[in-house]
Amino acid sequence: MNKLLIVGSVAFDAIETPFGKTDKILGGAAPYIGLSASFFNLQSAIVSVVGDDFPQEYLDLLTARNIDISGLEVVKGGKTFFWSGLYHNDLNSRDTLATELNVLGDFQPRVPQNFKNADVVMLGNLHPLVQSSVLDQMESKPKLVVLDTMNFWMDCALPELLDVMKRIDVITINDEEARQLSGEYSLVKAAAKIHEMGPEYVVIKKGEHGALLFHKKEVFFAPALPLEEVFDPTGAGDTFAGGFAGFITQSENISFENMKNAVIYGSNLASFSVEKFGTERMVNLDKEEVVSRLQQFKSLTQFDIEL
Amino acid sequence: MNKLLIVGSVAFDAIETPFGKTDKILGGAAPYIGLSASFFNLQSAIVSVVGDDFPQEYLDLLTARNIDISGLEVVKGGKTFFWSGLYHNDLNSRDTLATELNVLGDFQPRVPQNFKNADVVMLGNLHPLVQSSVLDQMESKPKLVVLDTMNFWMDCALPELLDVMKRIDVITINDEEARQLSGEYSLVKAAAKIHEMGPEYVVIKKGEHGALLFHKKEVFFAPALPLEEVFDPTGAGDTFAGGFAGFITQSENISFENMKNAVIYGSNLASFSVEKFGTERMVNLDKEEVVSRLQQFKSLTQFDIEL
Repeated sequence: MNKLLIVGSVAFDAIETPFGKTDKILGGAAPYIGLSASFFNLQSAIVSVVGDDFPQEYLDLLTARNIDISGLEVVKGGKTFFWSGLYHNDLNSRDTLATELNVLGDFQPRVPQNFKNADVVMLGNLHPLVQSSVLDQMESKPKLVVLDTMNFWMDCALPELLDVMKRIDVITINDEEARQLSGEYSLVKAAAKIHEMGPEYVVIKKGEHGALLFHKKEVFFAPALPLEEVFDPTGAGDTFAGGFAGFITQSENISFENMKNAVIYGSNLASFSVEKFGTERMVNLDKEEVVSRLQQFKSLTQFDIEL
Repeated sequence: MNKLLIVGSVAFDAIETPFGKTDKILGGAAPYIGLSASFFNLQSAIVSVVGDDFPQEYLDLLTARNIDISGLEVVKGGKTFFWSGLYHNDLNSRDTLATELNVLGDFQPRVPQNFKNADVVMLGNLHPLVQSSVLDQMESKPKLVVLDTMNFWMDCALPELLDVMKRIDVITINDEEARQLSGEYSLVKAAAKIHEMGPEYVVIKKGEHGALLFHKKEVFFAPALPLEEVFDPTGAGDTFAGGFAGFITQSENISFENMKNAVIYGSNLASFSVEKFGTERMVNLDKEEVVSRLQQFKSLTQFDIEL
């Protein structure tokens, strides 16, 4: 089985949406990525850090999905990263109510020995220096390195972000972030500029409006599935990235044609993630539901004009 | 050849975008619809009204496209409808600077005798009573009636709009209008409510984010083509509607599967319309360009996951 190495935050999230609110629940990029990738035939490991306030139950949840957590450092006496957010009525915008970095503040990632030859590396949203450090530790060149980031690092650590971007193959980023990073409003132009910064493939996530995959002059579009109700968008982007990286890891095929399938899988898995609070839906999802919804994506997008 | 009857405004538009501004140029729903539909094998006619300030050059432009203008009334001493708009930097929002109804204020549509048996009727954006009057004049039941409307009529003539909606098969409407008309934020729920108001098919246009076609529990999505630059969005919705109605008229097939093709054609033609000011691009467009861009829509959306 191929190996997928995942780095990203592990967090407590407290979420409020128009539909309700949660106490501290499992959150962070790495669990969303890991759960999403667990729907593919692969070995995965998470590199991250938590405090000793992190419940065994959540660790068990990850290992039950065959996710190696030997690279998940538990800091004695430390507190787990905490994020709290309030979504507005349209769920397209949110206020961050609290960000307590805690043990994430001086995190030094350590890649488990048996994942230093991972086939695919998924660098989830974290400080670009942490993302670089993970790449430094690899003993063989991964077939594909995927990086997710956010506007926060463009504001606070742009040189470090630009450095790590030179070492990756695929970047996943949302539309506003793509515009900020490139200084271009047109996403076609933005993708071209970001391509020049390093990554050969640029994925621009547009939330409920789908995702675009750019490669040189080629472009592919995966819609978001139109849903009756989006319950909680938290983690949708990470779930998308996990589905993308997971499918590539399983299929061992990094062609543009196969990446089209990967973004469809990413969109598919993200469409489940938003149906419940936090990771709840992903934990209770089974593979048959995933396959059945792929059929919906086909009906949604495939047409038959003869040219 | 099948017949397409088009009703809609014919106007002078003065447009300002971040890329420049125009004097009074040809505008209005009917010319955009007519030009777009002229790329299909059909007979079309426009029912509308202008003043005698309307230049012969514009009339010639329509007739050169085989559009019957015997139903285009010219009011002696009257002034043509005038609209002026200013687009903001993102081109997704605009201010209306002027709306002078002029001869459109008391327009009584008259359907040419040889189009009273039209196969498809495209009711472009106008007062719902004008749209109803056109349907009243039909001597045989059209195979398909498509209606486009806007928020203005929801505010000022909702009962009349709801009346005409009971007599149509397809409504095309933008996302904000769908939310206003239905009172639902979710477009899936909005489409279901609008379906209950009459039309069996609901097309929700999302501008740069594409268009959704709903039919009972089925849904199809046509993306907008990602463009380097959108120059002028004026008329994109009408061009979409013209491509949709034109393709259906030509193909004589009103199945959901064929409507998928129709929304792709609509998106395709609209992607050209926004490349230049006003109708300029549509006037200079040739069929080979349309076919070549259809191939781009295929590359953009088609994938090959085996289930």
